[in-house]
Amino acid sequence: MTPKVFYISDGTAITAEIFGHAVLSQFPIEFEALTIPFIDAIEKAEKVKQQINDCFITTQVRPIVFHSIVNAEIRDIIFASEALDYDFLNTFVSPLEQQLGVKAQPVINRTHGKAKESYENRIDAINYTLDNDDGQTMKNMDKADIILLGVSRCGKTPSSLYLSMQFGIKAANYPFTEDDMDNLKLPSELKKNKSKLFGLTIDPQRLHEIRQSRLENSRYSSLRQCRIEVKEVEMLFKKEKIPFVNATNHSVEEIAAKILDKTGLKRHMF
Amino acid sequence: MTPKVFYISDGTAITAEIFGHAVLSQFPIEFEALTIPFIDAIEKAEKVKQQINDCFITTQVRPIVFHSIVNAEIRDIIFASEALDYDFLNTFVSPLEQQLGVKAQPVINRTHGKAKESYENRIDAINYTLDNDDGQTMKNMDKADIILLGVSRCGKTPSSLYLSMQFGIKAANYPFTEDDMDNLKLPSELKKNKSKLFGLTIDPQRLHEIRQSRLENSRYSSLRQCRIEVKEVEMLFKKEKIPFVNATNHSVEEIAAKILDKTGLKRHMF
Repeated sequence: MTPKVFYISDGTAITAEIFGHAVLSQFPIEFEALTIPFIDAIEKAEKVKQQINDCFITTQVRPIVFHSIVNAEIRDIIFASEALDYDFLNTFVSPLEQQLGVKAQPVINRTHGKAKESYENRIDAINYTLDNDDGQTMKNMDKADIILLGVSRCGKTPSSLYLSMQFGIKAANYPFTEDDMDNLKLPSELKKNKSKLFGLTIDPQRLHEIRQSRLENSRYSSLRQCRIEVKEVEMLFKKEKIPFVNATNHSVEEIAAKILDKTGLKRHMF
Repeated sequence: MTPKVFYISDGTAITAEIFGHAVLSQFPIEFEALTIPFIDAIEKAEKVKQQINDCFITTQVRPIVFHSIVNAEIRDIIFASEALDYDFLNTFVSPLEQQLGVKAQPVINRTHGKAKESYENRIDAINYTLDNDDGQTMKNMDKADIILLGVSRCGKTPSSLYLSMQFGIKAANYPFTEDDMDNLKLPSELKKNKSKLFGLTIDPQRLHEIRQSRLENSRYSSLRQCRIEVKEVEMLFKKEKIPFVNATNHSVEEIAAKILDKTGLKRHMF
């Protein structure tokens, strides 16, 4: 039977989800997960405890609970349920208190950086990225932290958005299109910002599949056209010594992390 | 002295960062953090170990290492450094193995859901959200999972993008502008999708500050105008029985989690 999993928090439960998901993904089986955020009152906690216990009675298998509950009273109630309890926060907070010689001062939701400055950096970065997506304007390239280049549908937009959302990085992106292919070169605005350029490439077969689901049986989506564009753009990257990664089979997180790793770009958050 | 922290992984290190950040945010002190991803070879691990040990020699304080290293050989090398080692993954994997009676089969990077279907859901959701941002078109509202409403600059766009990026949810958003205020009502395309509507509101003072940094000393950014718009829009939410949350002082993660919690909207990822 599919094991039942609860992600519980007195905050958003996003940390509990990420934590639990990372642990569970090490197992080659399926889980059935339910996220329960904002358990910030005794009565709510009692209800969740009941829900967990009911689940145990119904399934006859102990549910798995991943939580990051800051409030000790709430935590104790969940802990008293029939679940097997994986307490992400406190497992590590106590040893760290000892090492640092500093008492923890738990604050709910501090994990997501509500600090005003960090928040505004992030919103600025998201707005910058939206305004400078897909080469729609070239006049703000001087303000970019990074400029992603590549053929249409290779993953530039999601990667740019992830960089801005997760790390507060101003990421512009610029597409090379079919019309550029005859005489492919860098526009002058990009040349001026050469040190910020970073390429994405993709296997032509995968690009073909992605474009097919967008514009079926078009010239744009043909395997032949995908091959030509990828080849030309990779040649440009090499000629201009622009670092690049192959986005095929990588998640947006992995692409973003590879870009940070290869460029040494500083995170503006965390 | 500011404690030194390393986030290390043989994958993206994003999980290690989130995990470490959540733990450290419980302490009322500053940390100096360095992320080192993709430590996927013995030589790389030996270099990082040396870097950690050098840091210890320089600072005379044991560095803190948060890691989520899947490969056991790599993990042992980092573990043998002078750092205090917080091993996020294995602390929880072993007890879970016992409980489930299933051996873990560690796969690097599986934590970020490379499964093709999940990936495509997410890209589709991001593209949908970009195409249906800021009321630029109303013709795809039937395909939305949720439609966020609110005044300009109350946080609709970052919240929509977070919902699509993190949870694979198709989130459209629609702004009410100054011109709407005299006779504020729902456009027919929104009325048709009433069950998908969700409001964001914000304190007028905070809205005023945000708009000032965008368009200083304009009518648009005046406290008076902000007050009028927020009041009118909140009245509309109440009249039309549209659920809403106040976005002031909340991170994008919190707003997104509140929306999921209040609507019961299903995550398409995780």
